[in-house]
Amino acid sequence: MSLVVQKYGGSSVADAESIKRVARRIVETKKAGNEVVVAVSAMGDTTDELLDLAREVSPLPPPRELDMLLTAGERMSMALLAMAIADLGFSVRSFTGSQAGVITDTAHGKAKIIDVTPGRITDQIGKGRIVIVAGFQGVSRETKEITTLGRGGSDTTAVALAAALGADVCEIYTDVDGVFTADPRIVPAARKLDHITAEEMLELAASGSKVLHLRSVEYARRFNIPIHVRSSFSHKDGTLVTDQAPEGQSVEAPIIAGVAHDRSEAKVTVVGVPDRAGMAAAIFAAIADAEINIDMIVQNVSANETGLTDISFTLPKSEGPNAMQALSRIQDEVGFASLRYDDQIGKLSLVGAGMKSNPGVSATFFKALAAADINVEMISTSEIRISIITRDDRLDDALRAVHTAFGLDAAEEAVVYGGTGR
Amino acid sequence: MSLVVQKYGGSSVADAESIKRVARRIVETKKAGNEVVVAVSAMGDTTDELLDLAREVSPLPPPRELDMLLTAGERMSMALLAMAIADLGFSVRSFTGSQAGVITDTAHGKAKIIDVTPGRITDQIGKGRIVIVAGFQGVSRETKEITTLGRGGSDTTAVALAAALGADVCEIYTDVDGVFTADPRIVPAARKLDHITAEEMLELAASGSKVLHLRSVEYARRFNIPIHVRSSFSHKDGTLVTDQAPEGQSVEAPIIAGVAHDRSEAKVTVVGVPDRAGMAAAIFAAIADAEINIDMIVQNVSANETGLTDISFTLPKSEGPNAMQALSRIQDEVGFASLRYDDQIGKLSLVGAGMKSNPGVSATFFKALAAADINVEMISTSEIRISIITRDDRLDDALRAVHTAFGLDAAEEAVVYGGTGR
Repeated sequence: MSLVVQKYGGSSVADAESIKRVARRIVETKKAGNEVVVAVSAMGDTTDELLDLAREVSPLPPPRELDMLLTAGERMSMALLAMAIADLGFSVRSFTGSQAGVITDTAHGKAKIIDVTPGRITDQIGKGRIVIVAGFQGVSRETKEITTLGRGGSDTTAVALAAALGADVCEIYTDVDGVFTADPRIVPAARKLDHITAEEMLELAASGSKVLHLRSVEYARRFNIPIHVRSSFSHKDGTLVTDQAPEGQSVEAPIIAGVAHDRSEAKVTVVGVPDRAGMAAAIFAAIADAEINIDMIVQNVSANETGLTDISFTLPKSEGPNAMQALSRIQDEVGFASLRYDDQIGKLSLVGAGMKSNPGVSATFFKALAAADINVEMISTSEIRISIITRDDRLDDALRAVHTAFGLDAAEEAVVYGGTGR
Repeated sequence: MSLVVQKYGGSSVADAESIKRVARRIVETKKAGNEVVVAVSAMGDTTDELLDLAREVSPLPPPRELDMLLTAGERMSMALLAMAIADLGFSVRSFTGSQAGVITDTAHGKAKIIDVTPGRITDQIGKGRIVIVAGFQGVSRETKEITTLGRGGSDTTAVALAAALGADVCEIYTDVDGVFTADPRIVPAARKLDHITAEEMLELAASGSKVLHLRSVEYARRFNIPIHVRSSFSHKDGTLVTDQAPEGQSVEAPIIAGVAHDRSEAKVTVVGVPDRAGMAAAIFAAIADAEINIDMIVQNVSANETGLTDISFTLPKSEGPNAMQALSRIQDEVGFASLRYDDQIGKLSLVGAGMKSNPGVSATFFKALAAADINVEMISTSEIRISIITRDDRLDDALRAVHTAFGLDAAEEAVVYGGTGR
């Protein structure tokens, strides 16, 4: 008998009919002889609707109260899902994050899970019951306040439960068939991957792939939990995310896992920075003090004898105004000339564990971009990833060119289901 | 400095604008130098909408899961109300019934409060904060499960909090100006009462008056909590419900407090019951075994020498099918001829503490009904109440006739606000 943890996203439980469909799926898994624990997101657009309501009442709601409000969303979906399962004749209990023992830090709106104490869940499993847990939420050990884990947090709930319960697999149900070599909405020739390493999945998630929440992949990797990403709309196998490639497959593992893209970043350029020691440090200290995470950095060599240089970096668009304000405050101190802000950029990332041992990947990559007439503005790399920044409106062409150049194109086009994936 | 507990019903917090209005009202009370604790219902029709959703998913949802679902309603309204108060610059915390220490028995959907342990509330009051508590909900001491108190339960939450905190007054805000001598929608000449005794309020609530939840009045009476029923749409004084009439007022206290009506009952008649000892007992034992509460009972004297009699009783319409089923099962055993079911009845109740010491009340009552050509089908009385059953479509005329006969008519017509109260 296996213990399976499943996670269903908001689009999988958007209305009564969808909830009943998911209930049947859960019951099938139970009938097949498994113990089943399910993490569920709020129905459809509930979270956005609650956020809208909060904004109508207050422009800047207290984070504690916002978490109180938002956690009502999964409370509804978990109870409804439990009802639908009970209606199929199966014994079931639903639990909030707090009841399920999902213990977090105190950072309202972006809390991190620090422990899971699943006593009530294991009790119910012992009684042969299916257990439904509200995703996205927990309770602070320190303040006993209700917290939320931030967007996509239900993935992390599922993986954390799987780790705490010693589950055999964590199945993440979504509205696509699995992890693709690229977003099929942009690259119709994208192929579904049967397998991807956790390391590669981490790089893809960090590079803009929305299939899995970054933190959930980190968590799965740390606790060695296999994730199976699959569609709640079909019974096909999806993509297995594990630390090691499945046996017998490593030999023929492809060099490249996929191509990710990200349109959520902007570029800030600090123009005319005196080319002296400590100037870059002062700039990035100001950014760090404002608690802004930056991504890629480029410092131009001094072009002439003025002794001035330009420093560019990318950051989430949502942090743009903060960053510009923080930098303006140190303009006199650092003595730079001006600031430029550009939110018309796009990022493309090529990810593959095979890069490590395959020279020539960069050459193929940049040749493909050049042939497609893509202007590369910034570059950054890790051991298994190359990322570039280009113009926003050239990103789709760049994705297709790179996908083709690395032989990732499928013979047939992928099936794309409706919805947004969460 | 006084401690004031306030309760706002669903119609008072139906949308963002209403919530902001209620927030201003709470802040006014705080500014006037009071400590304020607020019990709040779910927004507008939220509870009904959640019930609809539950029925779409399952015809007979497990009561535990239904309570999980429904309690999401007050979680939303309490968080939004807290946000609106914070936006006015006041420090505030919201708590679920469980967090607020509202301890109940395990009867999902109709739980009774058995204790209130308001430690978290008093902590926050000590810090000078306004506290918002989700009405209608609690947590079972025995099973640690979330429970709901049944329709109108938020009134009881407010009174129970007031008792546990030793509040000076419990203000119940609704969409009418207070307790009226009759429902102003039926009797336009109805007058608002400045004061009513808890004993009279109990009889009115038990007789169909919807202004206060019956159990909340019982609770207030037991713990001697003064209730002030008032409108959240005006600043006028409402109706004070206390154990004793306010000083100096008892002398001129009116004989009659008001006239209540109830259209939620049906009448069952067991026809042709053998007039022998034990037959009535068998009938009411069957009803009791089916856990059906009955209200009024009439047994006709045997009309002739057949030795047969008819037994009629009233019960909530919702229990009608159950009762008919339970009685059918004992037909052979008891040997009655047939069953009749009538849901076209209405109940009128005249309530007043002054009845005890004023003979002639019944005479005036029945004379008024006769003059208005109202056919009385059943009668029951208590020390301070007379109730009759008549035809549903004659009930409004009966109410107006009795109201006028006891001199309750106001000079001006009452102002009726929209909404359904709670």
